[in-house]
Amino acid sequence: MFYHVKELQFNARVSKPDPKFARLLLEQFVGSNGELKAAMQYFVQAFSCRNPYPDKYDLLMDIATEEFSHLEIVGATIQMLLSGVNGELKNASDESEIMKLLDGTAAKEDFIHEAIVNPHFGVLTGGSPGLTDSNGIPWTAAYVNANADLTVDLRSNIAAESRAKIVYEYLMKFTDDPYVKETLTFLMTREVAHYQMFEAALNTIQPNFPPGVLQGDPRYSNLYYNMSNGTEVRGPWNEGTSTQLGENWQYIQDPLQQVIDTAGLTNIEPTGTDRTLKDVNKMNKTLGDLRSEEIKSATAEIDMQWSSYSKSGDILNNGL
Amino acid sequence: MFYHVKELQFNARVSKPDPKFARLLLEQFVGSNGELKAAMQYFVQAFSCRNPYPDKYDLLMDIATEEFSHLEIVGATIQMLLSGVNGELKNASDESEIMKLLDGTAAKEDFIHEAIVNPHFGVLTGGSPGLTDSNGIPWTAAYVNANADLTVDLRSNIAAESRAKIVYEYLMKFTDDPYVKETLTFLMTREVAHYQMFEAALNTIQPNFPPGVLQGDPRYSNLYYNMSNGTEVRGPWNEGTSTQLGENWQYIQDPLQQVIDTAGLTNIEPTGTDRTLKDVNKMNKTLGDLRSEEIKSATAEIDMQWSSYSKSGDILNNGL
Amino acid sequence: MFYHVKELQFNARVSKPDPKFARLLLEQFVGSNGELKAAMQYFVQAFSCRNPYPDKYDLLMDIATEEFSHLEIVGATIQMLLSGVNGELKNASDESEIMKLLDGTAAKEDFIHEAIVNPHFGVLTGGSPGLTDSNGIPWTAAYVNANADLTVDLRSNIAAESRAKIVYEYLMKFTDDPYVKETLTFLMTREVAHYQMFEAALNTIQPNFPPGVLQGDPRYSNLYYNMSNGTEVRGPWNEGTSTQLGENWQYIQDPLQQVIDTAGLTNIEPTGTDRTLKDVNKMNKTLGDLRSEEIKSATAEIDMQWSSYSKSGDILNNGL
Amino acid sequence: MFYHVKELQFNARVSKPDPKFARLLLEQFVGSNGELKAAMQYFVQAFSCRNPYPDKYDLLMDIATEEFSHLEIVGATIQMLLSGVNGELKNASDESEIMKLLDGTAAKEDFIHEAIVNPHFGVLTGGSPGLTDSNGIPWTAAYVNANADLTVDLRSNIAAESRAKIVYEYLMKFTDDPYVKETLTFLMTREVAHYQMFEAALNTIQPNFPPGVLQGDPRYSNLYYNMSNGTEVRGPWNEGTSTQLGENWQYIQDPLQQVIDTAGLTNIEPTGTDRTLKDVNKMNKTLGDLRSEEIKSATAEIDMQWSSYSKSGDILNNGL
Amino acid sequence: MFYHVKELQFNARVSKPDPKFARLLLEQFVGSNGELKAAMQYFVQAFSCRNPYPDKYDLLMDIATEEFSHLEIVGATIQMLLSGVNGELKNASDESEIMKLLDGTAAKEDFIHEAIVNPHFGVLTGGSPGLTDSNGIPWTAAYVNANADLTVDLRSNIAAESRAKIVYEYLMKFTDDPYVKETLTFLMTREVAHYQMFEAALNTIQPNFPPGVLQGDPRYSNLYYNMSNGTEVRGPWNEGTSTQLGENWQYIQDPLQQVIDTAGLTNIEPTGTDRTLKDVNKMNKTLGDLRSEEIKSATAEIDMQWSSYSKSGDILNNGL
Amino acid sequence: MFYHVKELQFNARVSKPDPKFARLLLEQFVGSNGELKAAMQYFVQAFSCRNPYPDKYDLLMDIATEEFSHLEIVGATIQMLLSGVNGELKNASDESEIMKLLDGTAAKEDFIHEAIVNPHFGVLTGGSPGLTDSNGIPWTAAYVNANADLTVDLRSNIAAESRAKIVYEYLMKFTDDPYVKETLTFLMTREVAHYQMFEAALNTIQPNFPPGVLQGDPRYSNLYYNMSNGTEVRGPWNEGTSTQLGENWQYIQDPLQQVIDTAGLTNIEPTGTDRTLKDVNKMNKTLGDLRSEEIKSATAEIDMQWSSYSKSGDILNNGL
Repeated sequence: MFYHVKELQFNARVSKPDPKFARLLLEQFVGSNGELKAAMQYFVQAFSCRNPYPDKYDLLMDIATEEFSHLEIVGATIQMLLSGVNGELKNASDESEIMKLLDGTAAKEDFIHEAIVNPHFGVLTGGSPGLTDSNGIPWTAAYVNANADLTVDLRSNIAAESRAKIVYEYLMKFTDDPYVKETLTFLMTREVAHYQMFEAALNTIQPNFPPGVLQGDPRYSNLYYNMSNGTEVRGPWNEGTSTQLGENWQYIQDPLQQVIDTAGLTNIEPTGTDRTLKDVNKMNKTLGDLRSEEIKSATAEIDMQWSSYSKSGDILNNGL
Repeated sequence: MFYHVKELQFNARVSKPDPKFARLLLEQFVGSNGELKAAMQYFVQAFSCRNPYPDKYDLLMDIATEEFSHLEIVGATIQMLLSGVNGELKNASDESEIMKLLDGTAAKEDFIHEAIVNPHFGVLTGGSPGLTDSNGIPWTAAYVNANADLTVDLRSNIAAESRAKIVYEYLMKFTDDPYVKETLTFLMTREVAHYQMFEAALNTIQPNFPPGVLQGDPRYSNLYYNMSNGTEVRGPWNEGTSTQLGENWQYIQDPLQQVIDTAGLTNIEPTGTDRTLKDVNKMNKTLGDLRSEEIKSATAEIDMQWSSYSKSGDILNNGL
Repeated sequence: MFYHVKELQFNARVSKPDPKFARLLLEQFVGSNGELKAAMQYFVQAFSCRNPYPDKYDLLMDIATEEFSHLEIVGATIQMLLSGVNGELKNASDESEIMKLLDGTAAKEDFIHEAIVNPHFGVLTGGSPGLTDSNGIPWTAAYVNANADLTVDLRSNIAAESRAKIVYEYLMKFTDDPYVKETLTFLMTREVAHYQMFEAALNTIQPNFPPGVLQGDPRYSNLYYNMSNGTEVRGPWNEGTSTQLGENWQYIQDPLQQVIDTAGLTNIEPTGTDRTLKDVNKMNKTLGDLRSEEIKSATAEIDMQWSSYSKSGDILNNGL
Repeated sequence: MFYHVKELQFNARVSKPDPKFARLLLEQFVGSNGELKAAMQYFVQAFSCRNPYPDKYDLLMDIATEEFSHLEIVGATIQMLLSGVNGELKNASDESEIMKLLDGTAAKEDFIHEAIVNPHFGVLTGGSPGLTDSNGIPWTAAYVNANADLTVDLRSNIAAESRAKIVYEYLMKFTDDPYVKETLTFLMTREVAHYQMFEAALNTIQPNFPPGVLQGDPRYSNLYYNMSNGTEVRGPWNEGTSTQLGENWQYIQDPLQQVIDTAGLTNIEPTGTDRTLKDVNKMNKTLGDLRSEEIKSATAEIDMQWSSYSKSGDILNNGL
Repeated sequence: MFYHVKELQFNARVSKPDPKFARLLLEQFVGSNGELKAAMQYFVQAFSCRNPYPDKYDLLMDIATEEFSHLEIVGATIQMLLSGVNGELKNASDESEIMKLLDGTAAKEDFIHEAIVNPHFGVLTGGSPGLTDSNGIPWTAAYVNANADLTVDLRSNIAAESRAKIVYEYLMKFTDDPYVKETLTFLMTREVAHYQMFEAALNTIQPNFPPGVLQGDPRYSNLYYNMSNGTEVRGPWNEGTSTQLGENWQYIQDPLQQVIDTAGLTNIEPTGTDRTLKDVNKMNKTLGDLRSEEIKSATAEIDMQWSSYSKSGDILNNGL
Repeated sequence: MFYHVKELQFNARVSKPDPKFARLLLEQFVGSNGELKAAMQYFVQAFSCRNPYPDKYDLLMDIATEEFSHLEIVGATIQMLLSGVNGELKNASDESEIMKLLDGTAAKEDFIHEAIVNPHFGVLTGGSPGLTDSNGIPWTAAYVNANADLTVDLRSNIAAESRAKIVYEYLMKFTDDPYVKETLTFLMTREVAHYQMFEAALNTIQPNFPPGVLQGDPRYSNLYYNMSNGTEVRGPWNEGTSTQLGENWQYIQDPLQQVIDTAGLTNIEPTGTDRTLKDVNKMNKTLGDLRSEEIKSATAEIDMQWSSYSKSGDILNNGL
């Protein structure tokens, strides 16, 4: 259950209306890397770890709830940046203010002028935030990543926080309102904090590479395909040892020749690695049993109940 | 700011897994009339009435917050209905359970079989709810209606509650799990309650017809166009007096003849009504001034602050 | 079957080109509340009431057909507002007019300048209306609500008309072309008329609350959840009697305490209402039988035919 | 203005309900190549040729109107194929029919069983057609092609008719209801007829190749790039003369070598063609002047009016 | 397998940054008729003709690969047109350049000013091309047409090339950078070349009309429905003989009367044609057997392999 | 420029048709984490680092090209799994095979039966892969993340590879065709390899935390908000030191009290950290200058050219 506190988590303020920046800020309201995306991503990820991993559930719901609170901060800021538009639109029989714009005589300070850059502000949302990005694209759940595996989901979250951070950084180039900047700084910094929370949580899961359960096939896990011509570029991503498995990168200079020589890679032996197919199969079995059991043992098979209510109203602890 | 309470608002339970119904229930999770749509609609509508109409703000945020809580109930129910799928998927090196299905020898009680009806459960969301409707369509903000005018928004909400209600009604035909039915009954009934809340709020705004500020043109407000052939169907929607303006319906039997006779309706006088263009213009001015002033007087022009924080941390009341 | 009359229902005119307003007007062409949405909504709703409720079918098809006619009016107006763009684009080897703009020396009256605000006009639709809203978002059927229950669909339509009305109202703030304003006034007023038609039709269906067939559970139908902190706001939506069921609102001051005390609302008795679960079940049965029978009795089970053609070409009346 | 005739253009009938085929048929209702796409494509294309090319306007509107009539036929057929679902859903308190399905004891003839294959039929659209394709994807205007140039639009239409035709052909493999087959045959054949109408119209425009106004650059118009390895495949698309310009195809065996030799194709002369850059420029100018003038001369510059109404109601002919 | 050559197929250059044109050019990057649409359309069509029609597979893959190369050219051009934006954004603590714009004192040559017309450039993609059209709409596969029948797919491609051509033509009106114009000319001309390649390929398939296998019903294949009022417009699309079947067009002056007289077209005989239902059925059978056999004979039923690898790495020719 | 090699990178084979698994496999063809998403993400990211960071450009284009090659492998596999469907559909006049299914007498081995689970295979794509995910959702660029900052983009890629890996892992539970499994194993393992390549590339950029240029505000970078009730869950994400900045986590037990006490966090000092606002500003300036200069110095301001062609065809090295 959620509860709403009327106070904002951060004291959002604006110096004066700025509809043009309001438009840009929509990008972090419900844009592809905005607050709604973050909130919904962590919220929906939480369901699958409610019982098997209650500590991660708590983490995901805490951050999801904070992101909903950030969504509110961003929306409130946009509303303040659009201040005056809604009231002016209600003045339905008086066109003077709006028409100044169309006559080309609009004063520079005429904020309605700028609002028209996003037509939705003028004719659809009535001077309020809509659920779109800065180009008017409606939010879509296609932005959200959730795969019910914490070694994957936490990595998706680390990347999501990185993207949200850079968009706040870019946004700061387009306003000089000190109030707005302090709000953006707060929000940007929280992404930095969340990043480290998700990273710490990922570190508590061992092993966490590769993500998921199945190990990589040692025949293919350390090949680098040079799929382009030009000067041969070498770096730690195609020479030396790989970051996680510690295998030696094999640089395939001529992919076509290799695939022909190996009948489409079906005739190939592992090189540059100590891992064997046998190791892999064993690890797959061991880890699969472990992860599967963690979940199954924490989940009732019949008469499941999500919360810990008892019939008498006492709070007991009977799991999902 | 939001706060999360781990207990669900309603004690959601399920008797046994039922992935097929889990798929159907996605429709109310984040389908076109589902809980996310409701929550986001009321949440985003609330911004524009934060200061001018704080009572409506409170109402909208209370119901939005309840809808987020319902979203959580529905998600929890889907997760329980999918119980076992996630654990089975982690058993990555063992195919026996899944393969039974593909061999056609799956036992009828094999719930994974049915989950495959929604492939996302099997290969994308890992036995958890995804942010899609029952056909896998990602949620889109195109479902949400918010126009920053309470006489419009509250009507949008009344209709939204009606649709959410009927979808719960339809859903109840497809399960006989008594636990699930009691949850659906609770959720369906809350739509009935919310409907009446929005209706009561709309009634406190007078006049509220037509929605918005501008009055209808008396030349066109009571014409009924018979745009089809066949037996002439008459009813209170095209004869007698109209529901809100109390004008006499004018039934246009032959629209083509009328538009030709009136040069495309430009040569036409009001009939069946006492309203005049002069009345309309006067009302437009009066109501426009009123609504515009309500908003402007409640909104600061510079140095706006959303919450009532003071520098010293006291809660004062300085408006948006 | 449809038939097209070359005359517009309203004599749409424009004084001079205005590509900027053409862009805004796209919002009512095929935007989220535009004419295509209205036309398609009523058209698709009509299928399910063709036989059981032929009077409502006639109403829905009449208004749907009028909305298609309005769609044409809006499209024609946009085309006229873009007058000159298409011709100029064909002048493919001569860049002078367009380049004025890019050199910053464009005359203010250069309408092509303004068209570029919507790049689609310039490089995609060739100076013609496209099937997008004012931000270039392609029309999506996600805007449309149709649930095959008239007590729901008619309410969806009342809300849809309200939204279309306010968008026309907003649009009028952005033009001072008297010809365009008269067209907008006509179109806006027709939404006011349609609103009342749908309301009258809804009134002929009794009972029509709650929408659909199933009654609300008396334990949950009159609870108001105070889901937020701050001054307690009271109004007719949470005190006194509810608008439709006439029950006494129960104000839940502390939702968390209540749900814990009632084991997640499973231990709760109806208060503030005379309705009982027994009443509800009886009404569910009675109304379900009635509505189901209305539909079944009007529908053939085999050898269905939509129209009333006979083999010999006579028009008889054999139902769906 | 549109007018609705209650009789269908074709006497659509079905022998018995078949919800599974109803789902498939959604593909031609509002799928990517369905009737709504066709209707909207021709309808929106018509605006730009209203005055300059009234004969093509008449053609486009005639076919658009017929496609709307086909949309109705398809919707009516789907409604009949779903017969019984809506009535059953209204029987809200009785689960027997639906539950048979969930218990696995559903009789084979239980049509509701099959409807669940498309969950929308069961829980969203109430046993009626929705505005989606066979997978539940909402119709999007992204399907529609309209570029305000008849030499392009008519070709888009020829291709659109081809796709609609093949989808009807595929559909016929999945039903053996003779009534449904006769309707599908009618609809499929109309696509064949429309194809030829658009082709005939295209032929009346000369020159119509290349589409639009600008001629192709003779240096690049007859090169065939062999962008793949393997046996050299030769055919009339890369040897002999090209279909429209009659140039000799130049087969570029080794594209990389060519682009290096020609500094990225900037050092290249026309070969295999008599056309010169001078010819091209001249033709660009001539044809640009012609097409531009056709449009401009048919379009008023101020006080535009779409229809031919006079103030007195007479129908005069004053153009857009 | 694909291989990347670092050299562009055409030596794309730009004279100076022009973010406004960069925005327009997005339309051909990944807009509805852009290079990605073309590349993906031909690529996905190729799968179904890999074995039955290896010559067409070669053609489709060659052109698909060239279109990917064009996608790269367009993206590179956009990147160059945005030159400076990315670097300026990294200068994160210095607002001077950007703020000039917001103060209204931006120099006219300040390219960042113009970039903001597309907010994504400023706050999302960091001064780089994004995968959207000129209005910021994300690319969607709904643009792509592929139906696994070459008589249809090749026609879809002819139309697609026509649309891509006209969009390049329109774009050229909005730039006077000679470097950009030469690139656009190259790309536009390639569409002209591809058009003729697809046309030539279509001509090698006989018969190719109607598209697909099934013939049109002679009762409906030559009817022209006059679905609108006004002066009777006649042209080769409704009088004389039809373009492909050579039937005589039958002009249905009064469609309503005709459908009533013929019981919804069920009582009608072929006129204006020599084709009979018997001919049609025979042709359906013959052609169906032929096309079906072509495909089946080229496709293995078990142990299929896409490429021609042998175990030993030799390249043999064992088909799909 | 791209080049196509007809041999697949991996020798994709299938034992026998399996349309049901073909449907599931669409998820990795063009689903939200599929091969097209990966290919397009790396491809579009590459543009912004073409000149400033040519080594990363090479890496991104190599992997993008490999992903296109994987896209081809997946598409080829789907085509083989659907073997027979296309040929059967062409047999247009013979319904026997298809009708078996509809009569319920379909043999269990009838693969067409199963194909209908995805209606697109039957009636739209003609037994071939379409550009949709497993639920028929068209691919959308909304899946793609690219922000023109390598410290962000590489993290997005690490997460993307993680998701692609888990989806392949899930998919393997639903097939027992050994040929298909070996292909899936190859593809899954390549994600493991790419993950490590991106990680290695990220490590070469220092500092790379926080992503982008701006440092986090030390007042907010180490606060953990306990936004939910219930047992206090502590872990390395809210106690001890943070993973990257090495600050001490500050656990905010009662967020509401804190925000009130600090006037919405505006009256707060850094705790648990040595970083100061002064440090932050200095680092922002230093790093901003560095990153900005890296890009600007590598980019020409006028007469830009993407490739290194010279007028005479020599390959020189004049940068973007």
